Amino acid sequence: MKALQLQEIGKPLEYVDLSPPSETGIYVSVQVLAAGLNHRDLWIQQGQYAGIQTPIILGSDAMGIYKDKKVILNPSMNWTNQSLSPPKTFKILGLPNNGTFAESVLVPARNIFPKPGHLSTVEAAALPLAGLTAYRVLFSRCKLGKNSRVLITGIGGGVALMALQFALSYGNEVWVTSGSPQKIKKAVGLGAQGGVLYTDDDWDKQLLAKAGGGFDVIVDSAAGKGFKKLIKVANPGARVGLYGGTTGKIDGVIPQAVFWKQLTICGSTMGSTVEFRKMLSFVNKHQIVPVIDKVFTLKEGNKAFQRMKSGKQFGKIVLKIE
Amino acid sequence: MKALQLQEIGKPLEYVDLSPPSETGIYVSVQVLAAGLNHRDLWIQQGQYAGIQTPIILGSDAMGIYKDKKVILNPSMNWTNQSLSPPKTFKILGLPNNGTFAESVLVPARNIFPKPGHLSTVEAAALPLAGLTAYRVLFSRCKLGKNSRVLITGIGGGVALMALQFALSYGNEVWVTSGSPQKIKKAVGLGAQGGVLYTDDDWDKQLLAKAGGGFDVIVDSAAGKGFKKLIKVANPGARVGLYGGTTGKIDGVIPQAVFWKQLTICGSTMGSTVEFRKMLSFVNKHQIVPVIDKVFTLKEGNKAFQRMKSGKQFGKIVLKIE
Repeated sequence: MKALQLQEIGKPLEYVDLSPPSETGIYVSVQVLAAGLNHRDLWIQQGQYAGIQTPIILGSDAMGIYKDKKVILNPSMNWTNQSLSPPKTFKILGLPNNGTFAESVLVPARNIFPKPGHLSTVEAAALPLAGLTAYRVLFSRCKLGKNSRVLITGIGGGVALMALQFALSYGNEVWVTSGSPQKIKKAVGLGAQGGVLYTDDDWDKQLLAKAGGGFDVIVDSAAGKGFKKLIKVANPGARVGLYGGTTGKIDGVIPQAVFWKQLTICGSTMGSTVEFRKMLSFVNKHQIVPVIDKVFTLKEGNKAFQRMKSGKQFGKIVLKIE
Repeated sequence: MKALQLQEIGKPLEYVDLSPPSETGIYVSVQVLAAGLNHRDLWIQQGQYAGIQTPIILGSDAMGIYKDKKVILNPSMNWTNQSLSPPKTFKILGLPNNGTFAESVLVPARNIFPKPGHLSTVEAAALPLAGLTAYRVLFSRCKLGKNSRVLITGIGGGVALMALQFALSYGNEVWVTSGSPQKIKKAVGLGAQGGVLYTDDDWDKQLLAKAGGGFDVIVDSAAGKGFKKLIKVANPGARVGLYGGTTGKIDGVIPQAVFWKQLTICGSTMGSTVEFRKMLSFVNKHQIVPVIDKVFTLKEGNKAFQRMKSGKQFGKIVLKIE
């Protein structure tokens, strides 16, 4: 089978021909038709991840065929029951197990789910990891209800866009931040009320003025020095979901703001099988379609990684396997 | 009536004779027999609080007599229903309304509750604010269950001690930190497993070694530079309750630890009437007796404030009104 293999950390991926993996125990073979990229794949390729073993086929997301049926894969392995945190056996498809950037992939049969009928091959491949992460952080962790005011930072990323679509579908008012005016414009096109540039020093003041007040739920994957401003724009009782840390350590948070406003800061990543199932049912009910940035062939894998590295994408980058 | 009045910010309190307040609307007059001190009183006296108006009688805690019955007062005003955060009308007894450091105090009748039968006058006066704050942060916010491992920082303060007693009574293993070996010893005397000195740079490593692992619920009122170490000693799925910020801004928190461990940081202060009622019922059921540090007369009020300022207290400082 054709596969994209990381043979050495920091090096481009190799487009190689490997013998297909053999089914063993609860692991069954799924034919992959399309595979979504995630930041995780780029970070592993760049060596910014714990426990990397090479050679490895990366990729956590896939739409494919199993027993003649169109399926998608839950990338969250061994976290079956709802719980505060995953079990010690938890792992994510694509490391240490070989992932989806190949013509076939081995997964536990319980990680296979029917493809939502309203999604194309490429759209379905873009859903699993981002959809699961967005669902858990918004609903399980930040207890998002209806008619709330939501802020999503760094719009354009897969999880952020999914969170935007989920929050809108559930009847909320959503504002965004970005480093790019074009991305804010696109987010407004999807239903966001508006947004501000986080590159402006006073973005928090601009946002409070534009939005006419603060936010009940905030979803962030940047952390870093900007995080303290999220605390400023949080309404009393707000929940701040944190699912990434691209800009580093959190500094300068005023504790009095956290306790007087009774804020809750919720760390979150991935989710359980229970949450994956709920996410799928939500996506089906609200006919949500993931935003696709660009489609590459498996052979063009390194171009896809370049696209992700550029930070220019708005939506998911997907590899189509022909 | 005799009262301790703050006439000017930063100045000692004046022991004065005032005409007793007249009942008006829902406000009724309660005869005060003993009044507990809280850090809030000291901070107001020192001008470290928003919205201070002088002259003011400080004091949020009281045991007293109302309609010939022994009562205690809920210091949390207008936060009647359970909610994520208090309503805009929320205030704490003792600012802007005159408080309990006087022979009588005006409070809404709904803030009056029966004194727990097992508590003395002084013990009952030590309960309300610390008990309410500890109850909300531990149970409502950090969802403390049974058989969990709990860490309480800065043991010796009223809320910290109450949290220690509540967590122990509910069947948990509790560890503490302090700046004083004597206070750790006293906490062990109350049932804590052990503790470490937060003045040691490597207290987090010492604690993990001593306790043989991390913590499921952490309760802290210091914040500051030490907060990042709380994140380190938190178990996956842990809740970190924050009800104070005596050492300033939170710095250096690694976001990856927050989201990979699925941590929840819960800002909390005071509580609703619902929580006050639950706290009272918990205290009655488990026959919890607040730890008393020292009792002063109303006239000796400034000595009591000095004692609190020294940081040497272990338990509540109470003014007895004779």
